[in-house]
Amino acid sequence: MKMPLPDDGVIARRGDIVAAMRGIVPGEGVIVDEEELKVFECDGLLAYRQLPLIVVLPETTEQVSRILRYCHENGVKVVPRGAGTGLSGGALPLADGITLGLGKFNKILEIDFYNRCVVAQPGVTNLSITSAVDGDGYYYAPDPSSRIACSIGGNVAENAGGMHCLKYGLTTNNLLAVEMVLMSGEVVRLGGKHLDSGGLDLMGVVTGSEGLLGVITEVTVRILPKPTSARVVLLGFPSSNAGGRCVAGIIGAGIIPGAMEMMDKPAIAAMEQFVSSGYWLDVEAILIVELDGPEVEVDHLLGVVEGIARDVGCSHVRVSEGEDERRQFWAGRMSAFPSVGRLSPDYMTMDGTIPRHQLPAVLTRMAQLSDSYGLRVANVFHAGDGNLHPLILYDANRPGEMEKAEAFGADILRLCVEVGGVLSGEHGIGVEKRDLMGDMFTDQDMVQQSRLKCAFDGHGLLNPGKVFPILHRCAEMGKLNVRDGRLPFPDIPRF
Amino acid sequence: MKMPLPDDGVIARRGDIVAAMRGIVPGEGVIVDEEELKVFECDGLLAYRQLPLIVVLPETTEQVSRILRYCHENGVKVVPRGAGTGLSGGALPLADGITLGLGKFNKILEIDFYNRCVVAQPGVTNLSITSAVDGDGYYYAPDPSSRIACSIGGNVAENAGGMHCLKYGLTTNNLLAVEMVLMSGEVVRLGGKHLDSGGLDLMGVVTGSEGLLGVITEVTVRILPKPTSARVVLLGFPSSNAGGRCVAGIIGAGIIPGAMEMMDKPAIAAMEQFVSSGYWLDVEAILIVELDGPEVEVDHLLGVVEGIARDVGCSHVRVSEGEDERRQFWAGRMSAFPSVGRLSPDYMTMDGTIPRHQLPAVLTRMAQLSDSYGLRVANVFHAGDGNLHPLILYDANRPGEMEKAEAFGADILRLCVEVGGVLSGEHGIGVEKRDLMGDMFTDQDMVQQSRLKCAFDGHGLLNPGKVFPILHRCAEMGKLNVRDGRLPFPDIPRF
Repeated sequence: MKMPLPDDGVIARRGDIVAAMRGIVPGEGVIVDEEELKVFECDGLLAYRQLPLIVVLPETTEQVSRILRYCHENGVKVVPRGAGTGLSGGALPLADGITLGLGKFNKILEIDFYNRCVVAQPGVTNLSITSAVDGDGYYYAPDPSSRIACSIGGNVAENAGGMHCLKYGLTTNNLLAVEMVLMSGEVVRLGGKHLDSGGLDLMGVVTGSEGLLGVITEVTVRILPKPTSARVVLLGFPSSNAGGRCVAGIIGAGIIPGAMEMMDKPAIAAMEQFVSSGYWLDVEAILIVELDGPEVEVDHLLGVVEGIARDVGCSHVRVSEGEDERRQFWAGRMSAFPSVGRLSPDYMTMDGTIPRHQLPAVLTRMAQLSDSYGLRVANVFHAGDGNLHPLILYDANRPGEMEKAEAFGADILRLCVEVGGVLSGEHGIGVEKRDLMGDMFTDQDMVQQSRLKCAFDGHGLLNPGKVFPILHRCAEMGKLNVRDGRLPFPDIPRF
Repeated sequence: MKMPLPDDGVIARRGDIVAAMRGIVPGEGVIVDEEELKVFECDGLLAYRQLPLIVVLPETTEQVSRILRYCHENGVKVVPRGAGTGLSGGALPLADGITLGLGKFNKILEIDFYNRCVVAQPGVTNLSITSAVDGDGYYYAPDPSSRIACSIGGNVAENAGGMHCLKYGLTTNNLLAVEMVLMSGEVVRLGGKHLDSGGLDLMGVVTGSEGLLGVITEVTVRILPKPTSARVVLLGFPSSNAGGRCVAGIIGAGIIPGAMEMMDKPAIAAMEQFVSSGYWLDVEAILIVELDGPEVEVDHLLGVVEGIARDVGCSHVRVSEGEDERRQFWAGRMSAFPSVGRLSPDYMTMDGTIPRHQLPAVLTRMAQLSDSYGLRVANVFHAGDGNLHPLILYDANRPGEMEKAEAFGADILRLCVEVGGVLSGEHGIGVEKRDLMGDMFTDQDMVQQSRLKCAFDGHGLLNPGKVFPILHRCAEMGKLNVRDGRLPFPDIPRF
């Protein structure tokens, strides 16, 4: 992965920039010391590290506005950062750019049960929102694995998902409003505690824009009443193929489980060794299906799901009896990442999505790739929505092995696109998948996305190097025409 | 409502334009005869009429692409049109512009139960999608009153809603993918049968963009399994205030009914006279609450809802016993528009949204406005989501009465915004509410929306005069700065 060469001119002006930032953010909010900067050198994509020019930690929207206006007028790049748990490198710093951390925006501003929403600052963690309303019988539905640490602002930037998004939607389906500062320093408020408000849906395009369009300074999210009951059925299969057919059958029957997770044999073994959940070790795949809603509905659907599972050759069935057992069945899956982390010095978490019926074919091809690369892979899937998370095991200390793992990962993602799927499910593009965008989008699509980026950030200063493999010069966009499906950018370097 | 003066230069070139269009769309797809053009002179906003320059009815995406490219290169404006049922004038023609009708795009292309979606051409009616999958136990959730006639492409353009959108979402929540042609003729495909695909969410911003960003030539929508049971409870109240408190109580209890509709006394009287639904004539407000899901859940929730209703002073209760009675209870509400149409030579359908708890205050103020304007108003509401549809009764043959009705309507919408609501719920802005955009959005918001418009249609040829009160010159956008919250456009006429 090539990154752009830093701009020495900006680096030479570091002293001026620090002084300007200290004029805006008083006290300890401007970090310049190398030891302290190291804390910010990477996000959850640990393979890439870069010290930022400086880190600024504002506390108010007005400070964010002044910081961005200064950077806009002085040609300084800005990388917004939430909790730094992102897995695609969206918050990877730039040597010639400010990292703008939103960690001090950590307050819940309003809990509004009547309109069923919570207004929060972007640095509040995902889980804190549920915790704030839990006692009243409500929760915030999107539940990324990192929910104890990840920030709600970062969730919006990455359009984060989670295990219950099959039924309850991604962040974009649970977001009502944002306050956002544009690179020019202008503050806009998008959405509200209401339906469609007329005009162009800026909030829709901002969700999942990975920090390229603006800096979010407030969010309003929808909360839901907790389901009155939930039960889990564990299903064991003699082949992943049979598990895939079971997923097909459940969805085809019109059932939308609260969650439907699948894992393959290597993942099962790792999890069961780490935390005893009662997973069978003699099966090729396990499906965890959670049904939620009124008790009688859940009981009825459990019977239907069991019937479908037996029809496709399921060999083992266990239904949770009570809340403790339900939690126990989930415990293994919830610890997928630390479990697999014990199998290997390093692992890479991939994130791609495929049409559900392609699951058996993709698993077969992935096993072949694993053989030919000589790298092990353990699979956990959000099976209900076709979102795969292959975990590629490698050892970064062996020369060339990280590059090999990256090539393997890229092949998996290309395979996802090839069978009609897409590059991402919930982790975003960032730097991780940036150079694969051309495998998924046509030139027209990317030019159109670039035009949109330019409409928000005409100088290309906000999180450059992420998402798009080619950085367009916005001033030239007006003159662009795609000819014969090719981009007319021979002189713009891919970096 | 001032409309822009037509460009005589374009009108003078009509012959050339017709010839060019006939070169692209063979046969009867180019309409030039005045009598035939009259069919297209308005959409559902009957108060505004304008003959288009010509009408073109293409049959393929390639034809749409060639038409738009020609218009882009030759400075010809284009107004896209679906079934022409829109209520905000989004498809109002231009004297110097082509009306591009999508009526021949009328095929369902694919029914995919496994991925729970339908792929259709944009001219397919909303109801046809449900009809195509009904026998298999599925349906398409958004259900505008015009669903028998309105097109799915138009639904996307307006982000259409309906009575069941409280629980199942607007069009934007049920749309998976679109194929769209940009004004330059480029064809882009957005979304897919999958989750988040990475990159900027162009589909989010296109939904509800009222034909200003591109022409949709294919849609993929989500279908849902039909609820296993549904029952309706009719609740009568001695005051609208009590009805409003009942809505509050139901939502506050964490119950999301399939639909929750309210109507006031004038609306009740009109409906019951038109079709006998068993509505009480001695109440001030009726609430229709539909609960759907498993039978036992529905029965349980009916009891809870009844209890809440009695607590706030409900005077009459009736629960549907069987499917026939459920339909009968709905029949009155379903015929709201024709019913009210019999009360008055003309009526104007308004569409605004308010925070639910403001309902009593808004109703009181609306009654005062009705008195002071001397115009009657009947109210139907999607009460659950705060979406009001006041129907203003007037007689267009009385000089000045239409203008008075318009002023009354504008006051109602300003009132919605004033109490924390918004200009629209599901009908869009179009020409109807265009000049009120400044009451809702700040200058920054509108400039940002204009930038986005320019990113899609740099020459401003696609449906100009709709949505935005000021048409920005895109070439100048780069130089714009908002100063002191004011737009620097003294020389650009409001039209």
